[in-house]
Amino acid sequence: MAGASQGMDNRIERTGIMLVLSSPSGAGKSTIARNLLERLDNLELSISMTTRPRRVSEIDDVHYHFVSAREFERRRESDALLEWAEVHGNFYGTPRDPVEKAMAEGRDMLFDIDWQGGKQLMEKARAHVVSIFILPPTMDELMARLHRRAEDAQEVIERRLANATEEIRHWREYDYVIVNDDLDRAFHRAEAILTAERLRVDRRVAGLGDFEEKLIAAKSGKA
Amino acid sequence: MAGASQGMDNRIERTGIMLVLSSPSGAGKSTIARNLLERLDNLELSISMTTRPRRVSEIDDVHYHFVSAREFERRRESDALLEWAEVHGNFYGTPRDPVEKAMAEGRDMLFDIDWQGGKQLMEKARAHVVSIFILPPTMDELMARLHRRAEDAQEVIERRLANATEEIRHWREYDYVIVNDDLDRAFHRAEAILTAERLRVDRRVAGLGDFEEKLIAAKSGKA
Repeated sequence: MAGASQGMDNRIERTGIMLVLSSPSGAGKSTIARNLLERLDNLELSISMTTRPRRVSEIDDVHYHFVSAREFERRRESDALLEWAEVHGNFYGTPRDPVEKAMAEGRDMLFDIDWQGGKQLMEKARAHVVSIFILPPTMDELMARLHRRAEDAQEVIERRLANATEEIRHWREYDYVIVNDDLDRAFHRAEAILTAERLRVDRRVAGLGDFEEKLIAAKSGKA
Repeated sequence: MAGASQGMDNRIERTGIMLVLSSPSGAGKSTIARNLLERLDNLELSISMTTRPRRVSEIDDVHYHFVSAREFERRRESDALLEWAEVHGNFYGTPRDPVEKAMAEGRDMLFDIDWQGGKQLMEKARAHVVSIFILPPTMDELMARLHRRAEDAQEVIERRLANATEEIRHWREYDYVIVNDDLDRAFHRAEAILTAERLRVDRRVAGLGDFEEKLIAAKSGKA
C-alpha cells in the first residue's frame, strides 16, 4: 500500500513534515485529522503530554501521555518539550524526541494543536512545519455544532465559544486556510496540501542530486 | 461545475496563480498540461507568441500566436512580453496583458515553458508563480519515449536529447518536482499542487479579513 501510492518517488529521499492543524473547537478539525491518519500513509499523530485528568473515553499514551504536574515540569525544564502551553489551568506539551526522529527519517507527523502550540512549533522548526487553519463556514454553524455535542456541559460550550473567537483571530499566521463547509471536500483539500508539500524541491535535499546524476550518466552510457 | 467544486471558498477572494510547468521534452509534460486544462476549473493556457513556422497540425492563436520577426521585436521593445527566449533561431515569448488581467481577477494560468522562460517569470512575478519540474523516471525511459514519436526526424530527436540533459540540470530552481513514472499519478500530484496553492493564506489578501469580521460579528450578535 505504502509502496504503491508513493511510487518511484521513494527513490528520492526527503525530510519529514510537521503538519500542524488548528481551528476553533467545533470546526471539524478532529474529524479531518482522523481521516488523514486513517487514509494517508507515512503520517502519524504526535501524542501530546498533559496534566489534565483523563476522561473515561481516553487511553493513556494513545490520546495523550497523562502525567503529573511535577513530571511535566521536569520535562519542560530539561528541554524535552518542543512546545507547551497552559490552558484553563492544565498543561499541554509536545515531546521532542519522537518528532526529531520522524523528521530525520522522512516520516510525517500530524499535530492537532491550538494557535499557541502551532506558533511555538513554527518558531522552533519553520523548515519542517506546514500549518493549516480550518475555519467554520459561519459562526452560526460553529455554534450549532458546539451545541450538538452531548458530552459537554453548557459552561464548557460557552467557554469554547469565547476561545473560538480568540483562535480565529490567528488564522493569518498559518500557511494554508480551509473553510470547512463540506467535510469531504475539506479533507481532500488537507490531503492535497500534504501531497503537494511532499513534492517540494526544498525538502528533496537528499537523493535527488544523485537521481539527476544517474539520469544523465545513463544517457551518456548510451550515447 | 465551477461553483460546485470551488464551494464556499469562493467567498474568499484571492490573487491568480501562474502555474509554470517545465520538463525535458518527452517526460510527459504536454499530456499533464492538457489534462490539467481539461479537468480543472479556473485554469487557462497562456498562449505564447513565436516566430517559428506554423506546423500543419497547429492553429494560429490556439497553439501559438504566430508572428513575424519584426512584429516580435516590436512587442519585445515595448515591454509587452513578460519573458522571451531564442531557441534554435526562433523566438518565443509570453504576452504580458492577458497574464496581468488574469492575476488581478483571481484566474489561474498555465505556462508550458522551458527553464529559461520559467526563470524569467519567477524573476518578474515571484509572488504569483508556482513552478513544477517534471522528471522522467529514467533516462532510458526518456529516450524510448522520444523515439516513439513518429512525427520528428532523427536529427530532431538527438537535439532534444541534448536539450533534455541541459533542461534537467535546472530542476533545483523550481518549487516542486514530480517524477512521472505513472501518468495518472503525476497528473494527480500536479492537481494537488494547484489545489494546495489556491489555499495559501498569503494569496488570500483580499476578502478573508472581511470573512473573519463577519464570523465574529455574527457571534457577537448572538451573544
